Amino acid sequence: MRLRPALLAAFALALVARADEGMWTFDNLPLKTLKEKYGFQPSQDWLEHVRLSALSFGGGSGSFVSRDGLAITNHHVGRGWVQSVSGPGEKDFIKHGFLARTRDQELKIPGATLRTLMAMENVTEAVNAAVKPGMSAAQATEARQNALKGLREARGKATGLAYSPVTLYQGGEFWLYGYKVHRDIRLVMAPETGIAAFGGDPDNFTYPRHDLDFTLFRVYEDGKPYQPAHHLTWGTEGVKLGDLTFVVGHPGSTQRLITHAQMLHARDTTLPARLASLETMRQQMKAFAAQSDEHARQVNTRIYGIENSLKALSGYLRGLKDVEALKGIQQREQELQAKVATDPKLQAEAGGSWKAIAQALAQTRDLAFETRYVSARYSSLLPVAVNLVRVIEEGAKPEAQRLKGYRAETELKTMREAALRPLRAGNAELDGFMLRKGLEEVEQALPAAHPFRKALLEGRSAGEAAKSLETSKLADPEVRRALIEGGAKALAACEDPIVRVARRIAPMLAAQARRQEAAEATVAEHGARIARARFAVYGKSQYPDATGSLRLTFGPVATYPANGTLQQPFTTFHGLYDRALAWGPEAERGAWSLPQRWVEAKEKVNLSTPFNFVHAVDIIGGNSGSPVLNAKGEFVGIIFDGNIEMLPGNFYYDGKVNRGVTLDARAIREALEKVYDAGFLVDELLGKR
Amino acid sequence: MRLRPALLAAFALALVARADEGMWTFDNLPLKTLKEKYGFQPSQDWLEHVRLSALSFGGGSGSFVSRDGLAITNHHVGRGWVQSVSGPGEKDFIKHGFLARTRDQELKIPGATLRTLMAMENVTEAVNAAVKPGMSAAQATEARQNALKGLREARGKATGLAYSPVTLYQGGEFWLYGYKVHRDIRLVMAPETGIAAFGGDPDNFTYPRHDLDFTLFRVYEDGKPYQPAHHLTWGTEGVKLGDLTFVVGHPGSTQRLITHAQMLHARDTTLPARLASLETMRQQMKAFAAQSDEHARQVNTRIYGIENSLKALSGYLRGLKDVEALKGIQQREQELQAKVATDPKLQAEAGGSWKAIAQALAQTRDLAFETRYVSARYSSLLPVAVNLVRVIEEGAKPEAQRLKGYRAETELKTMREAALRPLRAGNAELDGFMLRKGLEEVEQALPAAHPFRKALLEGRSAGEAAKSLETSKLADPEVRRALIEGGAKALAACEDPIVRVARRIAPMLAAQARRQEAAEATVAEHGARIARARFAVYGKSQYPDATGSLRLTFGPVATYPANGTLQQPFTTFHGLYDRALAWGPEAERGAWSLPQRWVEAKEKVNLSTPFNFVHAVDIIGGNSGSPVLNAKGEFVGIIFDGNIEMLPGNFYYDGKVNRGVTLDARAIREALEKVYDAGFLVDELLGKR
Repeated sequence: MRLRPALLAAFALALVARADEGMWTFDNLPLKTLKEKYGFQPSQDWLEHVRLSALSFGGGSGSFVSRDGLAITNHHVGRGWVQSVSGPGEKDFIKHGFLARTRDQELKIPGATLRTLMAMENVTEAVNAAVKPGMSAAQATEARQNALKGLREARGKATGLAYSPVTLYQGGEFWLYGYKVHRDIRLVMAPETGIAAFGGDPDNFTYPRHDLDFTLFRVYEDGKPYQPAHHLTWGTEGVKLGDLTFVVGHPGSTQRLITHAQMLHARDTTLPARLASLETMRQQMKAFAAQSDEHARQVNTRIYGIENSLKALSGYLRGLKDVEALKGIQQREQELQAKVATDPKLQAEAGGSWKAIAQALAQTRDLAFETRYVSARYSSLLPVAVNLVRVIEEGAKPEAQRLKGYRAETELKTMREAALRPLRAGNAELDGFMLRKGLEEVEQALPAAHPFRKALLEGRSAGEAAKSLETSKLADPEVRRALIEGGAKALAACEDPIVRVARRIAPMLAAQARRQEAAEATVAEHGARIARARFAVYGKSQYPDATGSLRLTFGPVATYPANGTLQQPFTTFHGLYDRALAWGPEAERGAWSLPQRWVEAKEKVNLSTPFNFVHAVDIIGGNSGSPVLNAKGEFVGIIFDGNIEMLPGNFYYDGKVNRGVTLDARAIREALEKVYDAGFLVDELLGKR
Repeated sequence: MRLRPALLAAFALALVARADEGMWTFDNLPLKTLKEKYGFQPSQDWLEHVRLSALSFGGGSGSFVSRDGLAITNHHVGRGWVQSVSGPGEKDFIKHGFLARTRDQELKIPGATLRTLMAMENVTEAVNAAVKPGMSAAQATEARQNALKGLREARGKATGLAYSPVTLYQGGEFWLYGYKVHRDIRLVMAPETGIAAFGGDPDNFTYPRHDLDFTLFRVYEDGKPYQPAHHLTWGTEGVKLGDLTFVVGHPGSTQRLITHAQMLHARDTTLPARLASLETMRQQMKAFAAQSDEHARQVNTRIYGIENSLKALSGYLRGLKDVEALKGIQQREQELQAKVATDPKLQAEAGGSWKAIAQALAQTRDLAFETRYVSARYSSLLPVAVNLVRVIEEGAKPEAQRLKGYRAETELKTMREAALRPLRAGNAELDGFMLRKGLEEVEQALPAAHPFRKALLEGRSAGEAAKSLETSKLADPEVRRALIEGGAKALAACEDPIVRVARRIAPMLAAQARRQEAAEATVAEHGARIARARFAVYGKSQYPDATGSLRLTFGPVATYPANGTLQQPFTTFHGLYDRALAWGPEAERGAWSLPQRWVEAKEKVNLSTPFNFVHAVDIIGGNSGSPVLNAKGEFVGIIFDGNIEMLPGNFYYDGKVNRGVTLDARAIREALEKVYDAGFLVDELLGKR
């Protein structure tokens, strides 16, 4: 019974081969693939049901899961809302969790809205019809935008829905998505952050995981629970290794269609520069933290934030360093180029665009180094001073000659107001420390003759310059007001050390920004040409890059090779306690510290209950909170992360290792019943009440 | 209570910084480091106690753990012995485990021996004194060997111990280690392989792990349990993250002192060639397995064996591809070269040796490719035929002209006997399949004019050639006997297809072997010169490469970064059930299938019991079964593997990630008490009976 190796081997192979790429729009699903690979043919009702059960949570995703409008998303998606109704002590629902035992206790979230996608209309023809022969590229873009705006308003008036324009295939298609907006959202249940984000920053982006990362809200209308036309049925059977799953949600953005040259530029220039900056900042913060326990307390959250960024960017970079993957991308690009070359019209439009992008990037290669140092980041007062200088200098010029952002009178007014605003109270000790460290960096990285170094240090050592800059009085809004009122003359006469530096570096920063903008404009213009050519060649046989619009992706529950072995497809409650016990409550700022309720629950829960699982689905940031469905369209889990191998998914999909990480619906049910004594919610989710 | 981030951060840092390199001999322990870093000063009694409690299990390690001679090692070290007393059905102790409930039931292992290191004598002076002025290198080596042999015999006679020569520092020191040999070893307890090697081949070399990888034997003398002078006390408190641990055992071999050029040669030439060969073989086996369930059954164990080799060699290669690590190795080499250059005598001896080695390797670079194809591996009969050809041809020559291995009459006789031996029954279907695949490889890899291809395929297609070779009658010993008796004439006239090929490829293989041997001789000669120079410069401030002799290594229980997060320092019984439940019993040939006894034990054991842990100790193959001790010298676990990051340890030690994987003594106790109902053994281990 135990060994059926050949079958298992074939099965494992199939799991790998089956991984399916694509974040598909609902109007263009790969139904043929679904049928051929999985023998699955969703009906139109199935598709409409899952689409109308889905919810947009702004930057995240969610779904209706009960007749009376229970809406589920990730705890980390709903966290801000939970925070907004929290208070001190017992009312710190982020820390202690929250449970409304009656509907009366459900807490209204001020200003919260949710959206259901009710209508999708392809308006490409109408939009493109607005472009008249002889229009320049800029005029054409404006004409399209105006057309889209007009259509959007008309549809809104006609239907009462809130319409958003959706641009797919980088301009290949224009759509209007019409949403029903829900404006009365109340908090029903939130677990403690300690279990919702068990493993904390270290485990973020990784698997195996043990996170109860969900929150329940309820949508109200006219003071009563809203009964949506569609909500997902709770799947009671769960999934197993190899089972097909679907994810319906709002992936935010991907860059899979940028050119090979852009990927190399990110790999060799921009990402290493950003990583180096972050690493420097991390080390500076660590040096500050090492000075005392109190300093450590002050900056540890920032350090972890930086480390999370380092983790994410390193993941991107690792993806771009995958020689095989990049070769594939280059080959597909060459195939497209060859197809474009066979069509004189396309060739005239986009044939030279790959080279144009590569050249624009080559010309800005030094900027990545330059912007690391030539910047106003060294002190929180320096950006304030640079803005002040600009408000005065640009304000004195005629409108046409002004810098971007200071051009129209309204812009200028906004900037002037910003210049006069009181500053948020900062951490003076930390600021001073970081200022000295920053100036030391400049001292080490830039030659003495570099104009920026000369402007910043004025020939002094980093320490002396820092001491001088710290005597600035610019934190006082009245000092700034006096300068603005005094105009160019007062500015020129001002001997405040920060102002003195700002006067000299403002033009350097402006020149830098102009170079950056020029390159970006070239890349944008030729990127759009390539996108149009690609759409002309491939049409909708490919999926569009993620844009935050609703998508469907699918694939089986699947293991993947990592760490010298195969990663387990599921974790269980046993794994949760294993990890908590292995580390103890104090390790890594309590990352694996269980809330007391969970310590006590160990004797009550069925420890064999599946907790999280991995599946071969193509997801990205924004998919957080997406419902995971089985082939029946039932809710079997909620996606909350990807594995560390998912990060290159920003640039390309690698089905061998890219996995979504999902909280199993069975874990939610077990927790509600046994840990939170909230059987009444389970009954509602199961449709029993 | 939960957060003391600064302290924790400092602690984590300390754990990394503290990782200690070195497999130290007991005569030369880094006591200063132990005192300065850990505040620990082992007494001479402490050291003698742990040394005399240690046991050599041939290729593995172990220790005495009770007054009455209980000896513990890994299940995978003792596996062969368990197998040797196993039988079919219920007596399959590999599958079902074994437990002697009384001493009468303890099973004597035929021919098994164990050794305790009783005496260590540095005989370097006496050995080197045998070298007289004017001796050639070869004469000096022989003189040393003879001196060592004489001393060894004399010591053996005087003490009754079994002495083994131990060469340290590649000849810098010569020692005689005197062992007490135990010849009556009986099996007391062996768990089921399903729990001893839980996770099977996939989890091999990795962590987190959940392996109850131990076996208990008892040493007898004169028919009674042997009472060793020293045995380890069972540590009942266990260790925690950060606790210092010691490992006493017999690391087999390391190559940390080979030259930078040798490492590059391994990285760029020999390892890639071996990996490519293994990968080809894996794919061929997989193709055979794909033909039927029965074929899969026949070769799956071999495929897993190949995959384990691939995993290990890939780990070595990954280590050699670590740019930073290799740079460090090169720097240390340059430092040594600089020191050698300041001493005219050393410079004359070894100054040119690095270059000599690099040149010898450069000249054999093509051999790695050549030996992949020019070989007798294609059929099990081909090596037999090549030997047959050599026995006849070399036998006809005068002794001085004969090939290595066929030189002396005794050698020739051994080879002749081998040529007449009946062949082991093989798998004819698999052999045929692999023969065809192998010939296809040759067809694809070598040009038609290549002499080896011509000899093997004789101008035919791979398929035709295979068909012809399969008609060989050489499997019949009588056919071989007739050929040997017929001598050169019969050989020349023989039309057997395998013999025809063997006649033509035998000289090619001999030429290849001669080139290989010449290069190896150069590398050995100059490697010894460098080793002598290094010992002259650094003496015993460094530890010698592993040679299977007894060593001590130490370091704290420690996490390490992997998989995007930090690996948990311990696993628990919860983790065992988590992994078993996550995979189910059928996945990957039952790799995570629990024995029934363990399925049932879930309700009985304390699931919070630590199971395995990782610590920053410098170990390598041969350390398997080594006792892990706390600072009191108590037994707190038994080492059974390293993490995947440990594999580069063959070439260098990386304290940031290199970890030993140990079975916690608390898990052994919990299992014996609760799962195996063997409280009487626990009592013995705790010294209560």
